[in-house]
Amino acid sequence: MTKDTITLSDGGGGKQAARLIREVFLSTYGNAELNKLEDAAEIKVGRERIAFTTDSYTVKPVFFPGGDIGTLAICGTINDLFVKGAYPLALATGFILEEGFPVSDLKKIAVAMHAVVKVLNIPIITGDTKVVTRGEVDGIFINTSGIGMVQKDMDISCAYARPGDDIIVSGAIAEHGMAILNAREQLGFSPEIKSDVAPLCPVLAYLSDYAVSIHAMRDPTRGGLAGILNEIALVSKVTIKLWENKIPVTQEVQSCCSLLGIDPLYVANEGKFVMIVESSATAALLRHLRKIPVTSRSAVIGKVQDKTFSDAVPPVSLETHLGVERFLPLLEGDPLPRIC
Amino acid sequence: MTKDTITLSDGGGGKQAARLIREVFLSTYGNAELNKLEDAAEIKVGRERIAFTTDSYTVKPVFFPGGDIGTLAICGTINDLFVKGAYPLALATGFILEEGFPVSDLKKIAVAMHAVVKVLNIPIITGDTKVVTRGEVDGIFINTSGIGMVQKDMDISCAYARPGDDIIVSGAIAEHGMAILNAREQLGFSPEIKSDVAPLCPVLAYLSDYAVSIHAMRDPTRGGLAGILNEIALVSKVTIKLWENKIPVTQEVQSCCSLLGIDPLYVANEGKFVMIVESSATAALLRHLRKIPVTSRSAVIGKVQDKTFSDAVPPVSLETHLGVERFLPLLEGDPLPRIC
Repeated sequence: MTKDTITLSDGGGGKQAARLIREVFLSTYGNAELNKLEDAAEIKVGRERIAFTTDSYTVKPVFFPGGDIGTLAICGTINDLFVKGAYPLALATGFILEEGFPVSDLKKIAVAMHAVVKVLNIPIITGDTKVVTRGEVDGIFINTSGIGMVQKDMDISCAYARPGDDIIVSGAIAEHGMAILNAREQLGFSPEIKSDVAPLCPVLAYLSDYAVSIHAMRDPTRGGLAGILNEIALVSKVTIKLWENKIPVTQEVQSCCSLLGIDPLYVANEGKFVMIVESSATAALLRHLRKIPVTSRSAVIGKVQDKTFSDAVPPVSLETHLGVERFLPLLEGDPLPRIC
Repeated sequence: MTKDTITLSDGGGGKQAARLIREVFLSTYGNAELNKLEDAAEIKVGRERIAFTTDSYTVKPVFFPGGDIGTLAICGTINDLFVKGAYPLALATGFILEEGFPVSDLKKIAVAMHAVVKVLNIPIITGDTKVVTRGEVDGIFINTSGIGMVQKDMDISCAYARPGDDIIVSGAIAEHGMAILNAREQLGFSPEIKSDVAPLCPVLAYLSDYAVSIHAMRDPTRGGLAGILNEIALVSKVTIKLWENKIPVTQEVQSCCSLLGIDPLYVANEGKFVMIVESSATAALLRHLRKIPVTSRSAVIGKVQDKTFSDAVPPVSLETHLGVERFLPLLEGDPLPRIC
């Protein structure tokens, strides 16, 4: 199945991206930690458990309703640490700039990054700046890495979903992807859809009482809710059922998706998380989450099934508004490039 | 002095890059650790001291004599940890690929990265892959981040050079920059100049006996030996004198530089370090370094002077072969873009 050249789908949240990563990177320098393909890796430092993550941001346009590439780069990395149960200790930023990029825009981006880290008291302690000739990069790309301290009793992995677990999503889905698409293609939907980009780490303090009940957590970025739940199902070897009428979607996002024929379940989020949780903890946890502004629309949207996992059948299915069950397979690629 | 748009010099190792970093980043989200502008930052994790670093690699061509972008990305990050006295614990890689990039080249790059980390037993534990549309990036950019454990008694900083200290360079200079220039411009110099790209961390074990005597260390990449020594002099507020006849340069590099009118003192290295060391330790340390293959051509090339530092005079000077003293000022920009 190896092909000759890289295609856009290789960078999406779908099957093809997974294949490239497996065939090129894991087969060459894979190891127990890398092979897990979690949003952040874990490593022991003395007696502490440290989470470590990296992400490059190439979003286009650089400024979009609700955010910008800098806010996204900071929040994305904070959220990758969050879903491993880690509070950020420090961040590192790598800028690649195109000759001719406006300094005022760069300054605006730096100010936006600062606005996020200042409130959370997370220092950006190291960085790098490269400039390439005009035409060799499209404006600005930012890489952000982060290290975080995994919180007490947190042991979260995509491999730990178990039959009977509840699936919680922390708010309305698909806002980031639709905001980018709307801005990039100048579709002019009104009211304007805003990206949900936000740092999730403040939620961590509220999760400490439930640490042992949280089995898996992910932020549904590329590939959306359906993509991320497929990954969890595949790694945990479980099947998952979602209820369409429980999944929070705003009216604006729903209308925009319907008009364009896009399924919001596959659209990226940048300020939401999905949690797979021991059902005995669900009620109390949900009450707690609903009190926090950034997770006030949290909802139980599905359940890990008793049904046996099989490679031959898509592991994630949806009970629609009409009561019909339909599969939510992992797609080949992401229909929307450069959303992050 | 603020200007409108980013220029190539903003990414070099010179004055202008320093100005951009100060005016855009440090003035916005600077903090005690970031403001040091070291190759790696240090942070306490429990009782351990952790070094953290990030760098983006945009080198052109992707494959060059002596190495490739993957080897460079791994070694560069390992070396940024090394110059803080830290042994790498784990690396993270972020790839940005252009649609149409050959998968076979990507595989070759991954294999080259593995060749470095395998020998050193340093795991790449997390990563990210983005693909952008044709024309939006030039082939492949790689960001590498790393965390490392600062070794016992190592307390190394550009701010710690003191009058009387000796300056050691670990081998012949300017090979990387000249190899890239030669390959990129197809100058056809023969014998071909090979990049010196190499991981320096194996040297660390041999430095433990001298830990307290090592005051500053840097790998002279962008800006070359002269650029890096200027940075050390400025931060430590000292003056430095170098002796031209002590600085190791190979015949091939010297000829190539002379022909092109390039000063090798300003050309990038990717497998060398400069060390500022307590003079009482110099003789023993040098004997030790000369026994290690990667540092066998180590030499004392200069001294931190008693002369008072002044903002009005360039702090680094060179006694030439002819016995004449000339200043080595920090240049405005780097004459060679995309050498790393």
